[in-house]
Amino acid sequence: MSDSALPTLRIHQMGINTYQEPVAYLRSDCHVCRAQGFDSHSRVRISLDGHSVIATLNIVAPHLLEADHVGLSDAAWRVLGGRDDDRAQLSHPEPLESFSQVRGKVYGHSYSHSGLQSVIADITAGRYSDLEMAAFVTACAGDALSLDETIALTEAMIDAGQRLHWSAPLVVDKHCVGGLPGNRTTPIIVAIAAAAGMTIPKTSSRAITSPSGTADTMSMLAPVELDLPAMRRVVEREGGCVVWGGAMGLSPADDLLIRVERPLDFDSEGQLAASVISKKVAAGSSHLLIDMPIGPTAKVRSPRAAESLTRRLHAVGEALGLSVRVLRTDGSQPVGRGIGPALEAWDLLAVLQNQADAPADLRERSLLLAGQLLEIGGRAALGEGAALARELLSNGAAWRKFQAICQAQGGLREPPRATHHQDFLAGREGRVQSIDNRRLARIAKLAGAPASPAAGIALAVHCGDRVERGQRLYRLHAQTPGELSYAAAYACGHPETIVIEED
Amino acid sequence: MSDSALPTLRIHQMGINTYQEPVAYLRSDCHVCRAQGFDSHSRVRISLDGHSVIATLNIVAPHLLEADHVGLSDAAWRVLGGRDDDRAQLSHPEPLESFSQVRGKVYGHSYSHSGLQSVIADITAGRYSDLEMAAFVTACAGDALSLDETIALTEAMIDAGQRLHWSAPLVVDKHCVGGLPGNRTTPIIVAIAAAAGMTIPKTSSRAITSPSGTADTMSMLAPVELDLPAMRRVVEREGGCVVWGGAMGLSPADDLLIRVERPLDFDSEGQLAASVISKKVAAGSSHLLIDMPIGPTAKVRSPRAAESLTRRLHAVGEALGLSVRVLRTDGSQPVGRGIGPALEAWDLLAVLQNQADAPADLRERSLLLAGQLLEIGGRAALGEGAALARELLSNGAAWRKFQAICQAQGGLREPPRATHHQDFLAGREGRVQSIDNRRLARIAKLAGAPASPAAGIALAVHCGDRVERGQRLYRLHAQTPGELSYAAAYACGHPETIVIEED
Repeated sequence: MSDSALPTLRIHQMGINTYQEPVAYLRSDCHVCRAQGFDSHSRVRISLDGHSVIATLNIVAPHLLEADHVGLSDAAWRVLGGRDDDRAQLSHPEPLESFSQVRGKVYGHSYSHSGLQSVIADITAGRYSDLEMAAFVTACAGDALSLDETIALTEAMIDAGQRLHWSAPLVVDKHCVGGLPGNRTTPIIVAIAAAAGMTIPKTSSRAITSPSGTADTMSMLAPVELDLPAMRRVVEREGGCVVWGGAMGLSPADDLLIRVERPLDFDSEGQLAASVISKKVAAGSSHLLIDMPIGPTAKVRSPRAAESLTRRLHAVGEALGLSVRVLRTDGSQPVGRGIGPALEAWDLLAVLQNQADAPADLRERSLLLAGQLLEIGGRAALGEGAALARELLSNGAAWRKFQAICQAQGGLREPPRATHHQDFLAGREGRVQSIDNRRLARIAKLAGAPASPAAGIALAVHCGDRVERGQRLYRLHAQTPGELSYAAAYACGHPETIVIEED
Repeated sequence: MSDSALPTLRIHQMGINTYQEPVAYLRSDCHVCRAQGFDSHSRVRISLDGHSVIATLNIVAPHLLEADHVGLSDAAWRVLGGRDDDRAQLSHPEPLESFSQVRGKVYGHSYSHSGLQSVIADITAGRYSDLEMAAFVTACAGDALSLDETIALTEAMIDAGQRLHWSAPLVVDKHCVGGLPGNRTTPIIVAIAAAAGMTIPKTSSRAITSPSGTADTMSMLAPVELDLPAMRRVVEREGGCVVWGGAMGLSPADDLLIRVERPLDFDSEGQLAASVISKKVAAGSSHLLIDMPIGPTAKVRSPRAAESLTRRLHAVGEALGLSVRVLRTDGSQPVGRGIGPALEAWDLLAVLQNQADAPADLRERSLLLAGQLLEIGGRAALGEGAALARELLSNGAAWRKFQAICQAQGGLREPPRATHHQDFLAGREGRVQSIDNRRLARIAKLAGAPASPAAGIALAVHCGDRVERGQRLYRLHAQTPGELSYAAAYACGHPETIVIEED
């Protein structure tokens, strides 16, 4: 069947959010279904004006769709970029040749460089179904990827996307492996490094399963959805930025793989290294500082795991021309007080403005990391970075630089405050024994974070603190009474979220 | 949150066929979404009157659903079994503990017996998402499963479903590894074995990606959707049956895994052995004959692969008390003439009724396999089974037994005949060099098979046949002019489906 003979249907936005998987909807009595032998779970190529999307097919009842329409999920609609009632062509997608590379790996062979290039190119082009991506991710998990394969995967991921270049000879970046709740050091570090004259073009992500991502928190203080030219202008003027990376097209395969990596939650040293290094090389960085929190509930659980991952990150960075330094930090408890976009932003402001009650743990952690960056960048001698960072923070230089960056990104603004609150008090006196990070994150999400940006939790205690009976443990913030009561009901049902024991 | 406090919504059948994956649909402004922190791709438990289903969540626009409704895909609707507007409870499913077993396997550990039991129990209960099942299948692929793991997997799959018991001391079954188009020996073999007094309770599958499955073909001649008690009555009366296995609940995990195994198409010796042996042990068989076609486009491609798979099948069968015999057969070309439910049924009738023009390849293959079964069952001495099978066929005993089985299953009926035909003729004289099985299957499906049961292809030649220019190669059958013309257009565009070369 030649292309011109391909059957056409009018496209229709169904209004169904299937997360990121493109899904197409057809009626079973649709002539194209019968003619092409399409059935539920078929993969279908839909083409329109030079764009095309490969989608998984769902068959729908007649009341949901007109007979000569093909319905598209939100993700498919975005990729195709047409208008309702445009005529699109439907066809069988070409066979996915690169999946034989994944089969080979599963059968015990190694990936070749060109094999991984073809897999990543197909994933980036949207040719892999979620099932096929799950198989790829599974076949990379654990220590399945050799160092050579990891380097090849990293190169393939860089090659599949945009790549930035900067005129500065030294471009730094920082990354945290597996975030802790409230660990929002990034905007503070960027402000300090840029205040010292360094170039630090920081791209961050939005929350996927947590109550806030760095980009969510930063968006409380300034616009973060900049395109590439706008981001470049900010960095050229101020030396640094904190923007959302999703629109930059840096290592786009990584963004696509996340949707299957998250639910499967495999540890994969090779894939983690490829993910981190590819984003940073694509962003044009020459030097990278990695914050690696170690703790029983952190991403990296033991010094031994940290050692192995560190070696891999160094080796992959070296192969790709990126100088990597890893700093191991305490990953045993949350950082700062706020959990949720606005509450975390208030913490940031308190540190940057040298407020007396600024959370000390967030400040000290930021200074430690910023100090390392200053040393990497040659702004401070070995061992003297932290002192310079402290000076740039306390003399107001970091705060001035942060304001300038926000201004350049579109204007500094004040984070919102929630209108509804409820305090949770200690039921007894004693010492705070443990804080359940996952439970706190869940409560903050029930209260509405991150979609309701002022919602979340303001922690009043940390592990080891002594508390009196009736003393506040945390305050719940919400934007509506309904959200407050849902979250509060859940919190009341789980008093073990913060455990207090007798001294 | 206690169970009684779980939020409820009214259920609504969306009319969306997502293949077998249960999907739930909620509006983003639904209070339950906000309260429970549900988002696209969340896993949600929906409970109603003691039934529950775990579904993947899609978020939909307001015009598709009322605010206090939860929409259900066809698969989710079937499992939950409620009526429109019934009030169901929504909650987060409990954590999927058994997936840590899959992670362990991916990280290089072996499955324990209890670990596989918990994985298969959770898969059977519908607790695994498609992504999680894809990871499990990937981690079993190639030769990843040891013999011990294969045996444990087989036991787990048996334990998760129904298990039949028969009073006969010897219960036989046959299975074909990777079917060839038209290879419908099963009903003939059952008729011969039952005519010889053996017990052969045969359960078969419907087509998944092919133009017809054995159950589809058999359903042209008699009802096949029998429940367990009805199937038992047929076997107790006639010694044999050919029914659809989907309603029997034998090794149900296997049916669930198929929906991810098919698209990924991994070779997995362990999983294949577990799949075959678990079904047969669950069906109560004591002896199993396996037809293993070997050919470049068959499931088993080389004698070496056949050797290894045969060893595994024997060992797993032995461990589970099932005596296994494997017969290697020619897998290089289709069997018989018809491709499609009714056309294959006509082939069967021709063989069973000893018609002069019955397809000889189908007959001889059936006699070979039936002869082996008669020897296994002690009805014939070693080497004399085929002769007895031929006698039972030619003296009409097999045909009488087949009629009796059909009668017991609900009545023998005549297969339908298509009303629209088109012949495809040889464009030159010469010898048939090759027949593209996949292409033929595709054409038969375009013509409407298996949904239009009379549709399909009647092959008039086989490889090696001499043909004159203008001689018929095959006849296309369809139930509507539209389907005929779609399939014919495709067939005309692919003259290489049957290649003829000069002698």
